[in-house]
Amino acid sequence: MPRLYFDWNSTTPPLPEAVAAMTDVYAHAWGNPSSVHAEGRAARARLEEARVILAGLAGAAPSDVLFTSGGTEASNLALLSPYAKDPGGAFLYAPVEHASIGAVAARLAELGVEVRRAKVGRDGVIDRDDVARHLERGGVRLVAVQAVNGETGVRQPVAEIASLAHAKGAVVHVDAIQGLGRIEPPGGSWLSSADTVALAAHKIQGPKGIGALATRPGHPIHPVLRGGSQERGLRPGTQDPALAAGFAVAAERARRSIPEYAAVARVRDRFEAGLRALGQPGDVGVNGEGAPRVGHVVHVSFRHWSSPELVAALDLEGLACSGGAACHAGVPEPSATLVAMYGELPDEHWRYLGPVRFSLPPWTVDDDVDAALAIIRRVLERQRS
Amino acid sequence: MPRLYFDWNSTTPPLPEAVAAMTDVYAHAWGNPSSVHAEGRAARARLEEARVILAGLAGAAPSDVLFTSGGTEASNLALLSPYAKDPGGAFLYAPVEHASIGAVAARLAELGVEVRRAKVGRDGVIDRDDVARHLERGGVRLVAVQAVNGETGVRQPVAEIASLAHAKGAVVHVDAIQGLGRIEPPGGSWLSSADTVALAAHKIQGPKGIGALATRPGHPIHPVLRGGSQERGLRPGTQDPALAAGFAVAAERARRSIPEYAAVARVRDRFEAGLRALGQPGDVGVNGEGAPRVGHVVHVSFRHWSSPELVAALDLEGLACSGGAACHAGVPEPSATLVAMYGELPDEHWRYLGPVRFSLPPWTVDDDVDAALAIIRRVLERQRS
Repeated sequence: MPRLYFDWNSTTPPLPEAVAAMTDVYAHAWGNPSSVHAEGRAARARLEEARVILAGLAGAAPSDVLFTSGGTEASNLALLSPYAKDPGGAFLYAPVEHASIGAVAARLAELGVEVRRAKVGRDGVIDRDDVARHLERGGVRLVAVQAVNGETGVRQPVAEIASLAHAKGAVVHVDAIQGLGRIEPPGGSWLSSADTVALAAHKIQGPKGIGALATRPGHPIHPVLRGGSQERGLRPGTQDPALAAGFAVAAERARRSIPEYAAVARVRDRFEAGLRALGQPGDVGVNGEGAPRVGHVVHVSFRHWSSPELVAALDLEGLACSGGAACHAGVPEPSATLVAMYGELPDEHWRYLGPVRFSLPPWTVDDDVDAALAIIRRVLERQRS
Repeated sequence: MPRLYFDWNSTTPPLPEAVAAMTDVYAHAWGNPSSVHAEGRAARARLEEARVILAGLAGAAPSDVLFTSGGTEASNLALLSPYAKDPGGAFLYAPVEHASIGAVAARLAELGVEVRRAKVGRDGVIDRDDVARHLERGGVRLVAVQAVNGETGVRQPVAEIASLAHAKGAVVHVDAIQGLGRIEPPGGSWLSSADTVALAAHKIQGPKGIGALATRPGHPIHPVLRGGSQERGLRPGTQDPALAAGFAVAAERARRSIPEYAAVARVRDRFEAGLRALGQPGDVGVNGEGAPRVGHVVHVSFRHWSSPELVAALDLEGLACSGGAACHAGVPEPSATLVAMYGELPDEHWRYLGPVRFSLPPWTVDDDVDAALAIIRRVLERQRS
């Protein structure tokens, strides 16, 4: 039986065309893009071609795209910049955001910034009314909002939150990483409802090790790392045209793949129905149920099983999935996303124990999910007996 | 005529074996190293194999090697960490250090740290007596010293400076990037005279986009970027086993290539003699003359020519070289290294105008440097007429 990789939100295999673009750069454009000679200019050309493509994906001017080592660094730049000179003005986010946003929030608090947390509905959607209340209270300088939650696949109301924030003079950072190539950006372009947008290559079949921060024209960014004059001095260190070229190939494919992610929802729904049927009513909870979600994700909690054991057993049977966000794997604390959703609902705390995320490649078919369901049924029955 | 790439210190073409290792990871170990399933474990295995090899290169325990996006980030971590909780205690460095060290020094000064600059001899060697004086004055907490200057190729007295610093209770950061694979580490291991060592892949025929910080056991590092728990939370963001594997292949080769860099000095000396013969006595100055230098670098200033024009003309004739450090290319200010060497010697300020760095691949032969000299002679004669 072929192995089933249902952990698409964790990382994706690089496209062969992306790898080909990278090896081509290694062979023919390996120079330092800061060098003025032919080898340097060849490298610079590849870097800047990639920047134009990424700018197109973000809806930015090419000169407003900074290459970074990944999404975490992009979000660090976006969130630390407004406070680089002055800790005044609150930072508002909801605790369903990616670990990088929560960790930078903790750092901002250390620096004296007031950090406010918006509520989240039990469906995983950020509570617009609570966001509006925080903004009405005044004093908010920066709001961070994710396009799509990496665990539940829930789509957040980015455009509405951005509109509320902008009306109160706050700037908006959008972590678009789990939305890239999976949903149409709200308003037709990521920057239409954001001042800064974080992008990453490895969730869209590009290489790891590269991301980007796209900004609105004139939005000020302050460097986090210090060094040379690369990326206008805002992100020093020799740039890699190979990673950038791989990222660009992935980005071009991502723009075309949105319909595939929408279409796979039908297969995902079949899978989800099968998962529910595995337990007694009330024993299998789909997290984010009822909320707008991306088409390829189903995040379930099992009342009587704990996810680390389940994920390990499924892996041995040929089904790869994730128990919570991969970057928390091994850490026993409950998912911040689930705590935000159910923290005030003690009857739902059983969901913390056994969350499993299945994120399907967009070409998944009925036979694949049926095979996955057979594996899960077998493993659960074995654990039961 | 084949093109002559004499800009080896700027960046190097990745080894075919390094590219092969990377494409192998892209094909077979593309998982997220934080995932617990088979795909994740395969990626984790490649990442940790690479870490062991890098640890060997640095003389560190594998658990004391942090992967970063490059040398700049590694040095940021090393220099900001001691002051993460407390700006007390001076930072001492010499202004011949790489731009990343100088830029972090400026950042430390903003944070309230006392920054002291040690003198540099006219031969480019850091003045040990001045370092000793600063340390005798007391209050120095951190000293940064480069293994090899990237412009002049001058080798710095790392072991002696580290010994002086350690005797006064200061910690020592060594930027080993221009020394890796080119000289034997002082004392047999980079960490034998340092508490932290910055490494980078792209100067040793590995990929761009990856570096490492190696630390002595127990030396505390504080994160600069905030996010997930990767690299023990000290350097968050999904790690790239492909870049790590390419780095490891390059590191293994680097360990074996030191004799080649020593041997090429004979060819470099022939080249250097030819360069001197291009001008009247006193019109061609070799920077770093008389100092211990790596074998493959010659950094010259021409009294009557300015380097941007010269570098561009040589490039058109098939000879790639650099006018000052590549990461400053296009920036008209004089090299910080040359200012440190000659700032107090007004008769030598002509050297700021026309510095050209030739850094030779280790397989350069007499015919190559003779061909380079013929090109340089032709270009200079054309400019003269």
